Amino acid sequence: MEDFKFLSSTKIVFGRSSEKELGKEILEAGGHRVLLHHYGKITHDIGLYDKVVSSLAKAGLEVVDLDGVMPNPRLSLARKGIELVRREKIDFILAVGGGSVIDSAKTIAIGVPYDGDVWDFYAGKAVAAKALPIGVVLTIPATGSEASDGAVITNEDGMYKRPYHSDLIRPRFAVMNPEITYTLPRFQSMAGGVDILTHVFERYFTHTTGVELTDEMSEGHMRAIVSSLRTINSNPNDYTARANIMWGGTLAHNGLLGTGRVEDWGSHMIAHEIGAKYDLAHGATLSIVFPSWMRYVYREDVARFARFAVNVWNVRPDYQDLEKTALEGISRMEEFFRSLGLPTSFRDANLPTDALDELATKCVKDGPVGNFRKLYKEDVIAILSAAAE
Amino acid sequence: MEDFKFLSSTKIVFGRSSEKELGKEILEAGGHRVLLHHYGKITHDIGLYDKVVSSLAKAGLEVVDLDGVMPNPRLSLARKGIELVRREKIDFILAVGGGSVIDSAKTIAIGVPYDGDVWDFYAGKAVAAKALPIGVVLTIPATGSEASDGAVITNEDGMYKRPYHSDLIRPRFAVMNPEITYTLPRFQSMAGGVDILTHVFERYFTHTTGVELTDEMSEGHMRAIVSSLRTINSNPNDYTARANIMWGGTLAHNGLLGTGRVEDWGSHMIAHEIGAKYDLAHGATLSIVFPSWMRYVYREDVARFARFAVNVWNVRPDYQDLEKTALEGISRMEEFFRSLGLPTSFRDANLPTDALDELATKCVKDGPVGNFRKLYKEDVIAILSAAAE
Repeated sequence: MEDFKFLSSTKIVFGRSSEKELGKEILEAGGHRVLLHHYGKITHDIGLYDKVVSSLAKAGLEVVDLDGVMPNPRLSLARKGIELVRREKIDFILAVGGGSVIDSAKTIAIGVPYDGDVWDFYAGKAVAAKALPIGVVLTIPATGSEASDGAVITNEDGMYKRPYHSDLIRPRFAVMNPEITYTLPRFQSMAGGVDILTHVFERYFTHTTGVELTDEMSEGHMRAIVSSLRTINSNPNDYTARANIMWGGTLAHNGLLGTGRVEDWGSHMIAHEIGAKYDLAHGATLSIVFPSWMRYVYREDVARFARFAVNVWNVRPDYQDLEKTALEGISRMEEFFRSLGLPTSFRDANLPTDALDELATKCVKDGPVGNFRKLYKEDVIAILSAAAE
Repeated sequence: MEDFKFLSSTKIVFGRSSEKELGKEILEAGGHRVLLHHYGKITHDIGLYDKVVSSLAKAGLEVVDLDGVMPNPRLSLARKGIELVRREKIDFILAVGGGSVIDSAKTIAIGVPYDGDVWDFYAGKAVAAKALPIGVVLTIPATGSEASDGAVITNEDGMYKRPYHSDLIRPRFAVMNPEITYTLPRFQSMAGGVDILTHVFERYFTHTTGVELTDEMSEGHMRAIVSSLRTINSNPNDYTARANIMWGGTLAHNGLLGTGRVEDWGSHMIAHEIGAKYDLAHGATLSIVFPSWMRYVYREDVARFARFAVNVWNVRPDYQDLEKTALEGISRMEEFFRSLGLPTSFRDANLPTDALDELATKCVKDGPVGNFRKLYKEDVIAILSAAAE
């Protein structure tokens, strides 16, 4: 086990009645003038906008609206938000949405007290020293951004998609009502579910030994998420399954399931490039990349992939042929992704395959990615090529 | 799944090099004059006292010493600490020890800014409004107090042992080096391990349905702890096993494995009375109470106890006779406790059995205890009687 630090300071307010606590939580976090950051029309359509605004009004909070967030949130909107917050003397940012809104809010939060351009943080040229407090009303479980220290933003100038990490951007609270997710389009629910699973994959595939507690909890987590995704695939209004997925999304990415180990993140870096270039939902880029990545790297530790196959995908182990066991697990995972209506290749997603070299070049721009196996440009091209058809 | 709130704000600094961070963490938490609260001689004997004092000195912190904490920490020492902190104008309390030291520190932390007697909080007569910040250097994994909102203190006037809960007494940080636990006496290591397991039991035995994620993670956690305790039983210096137990102790009691469910805690209330009267290690009172409690209540949900037997104790399920399966799990757990050198009856622990009525009376003084099955005085007597031999 590696030495580690673990901090997950976000207060989770979870369940059917959770939105009622919203005003109180903002007041406790010291907010007075609130930037309400959200997608726009859809927030109104599901009735959430009115609910939130009335809860804030009841608490005596003043509200300034900033809508228009898109998937793969853009740097330009965050810059606009920074100007707005400064002009309106806002002291608290409430993100009502999923990972895109939350990451846009986080970018605004560190941009406001910073003299330079906020992209500096993502470009590795600056470290945040201050941030406005953030709160979240989560509408889609996926990125885990509601309780993570990370944000990912896309710079339209070159379509670079880059992450930034700091304890300063952990939300103070996350209000999470699973009922809100009933009306999500199937594709978004499932893409979110795969994002959650892959946050565990990125931590589970490690060469660190002696982390049985984290392994056991991770496998239990993955089994519960797979089973819950199967349930909502046939019954989108199953509260229990929706609740397990929503809470599981937070736990997949608050750091817990990575404690004591070296993490990977190569697949996410590859998927980010696909998302940035083609504006495809993050979870769908991951369902394309992961089967291909796994088949490319499993020989680094066949026993580990066999364990994954047996403990997560219920493969009957062939002790004479662990490689077969490992590959059967990857196939079952791929079939599972397809059963959820997600693409597992560029062709499935109707993406062109003429820019694999460009994607790979951008992906390893700052050096090789991943740890389970370090991936150089030729590795990324091989993984992308295998994912083409 | 029940609606829930979850907060676990303690920063974990874990591993072989963790003590180096101590001074920095106290400074970050705003400390200047530090109360160093600990057991006394043993802290010196294991070389920890000098290490801590030199780390604090290096950070420019002033230190006032308060030693003499005993298992089942006493109200009188906490009262003495409150006076000392006020007199010495201390602004940070560092607990170097296990649950007893931490809980004593927590009691001092809420007692200092309170005008009345600190026992008021434990007697249910007052709610803490302020507390001094606390940090922890953990020496024994057991109570989970290093990242919990709870403290338990014993009032010598009547030997009442009572808990108090507040977010204000969550430690700011916990420094956790598994190597420190190599030299613990076997009995203390094992009693601590059982305390950890039973923190999960108290949450796992619930009638709440739809909590598969928490169930799966709890079972994975218990398997890892059982396996690690078996390892240190034969090899006390196994870093991996010690590390899994230490981190598992925190996760067993920071609220994570109780999310979304009604918890029980009846057995802990019974065990607290035994601990208060006979000054027996907390874990050893739990190894006495739990087998008896389980046999008394398992009929409330035979399927749940069968699942526990299969998933935690590796019992081969008899689908024709789940009751047999359930009972076999309880027997294996009891054998496991004995294999660790822990008592599973009053007789094993050389405790007299002439005060069962008195113990039961005190236990239900404020009403019935437990939720999986509500326990009245006659139930507690029946459980204690079954645990006598």
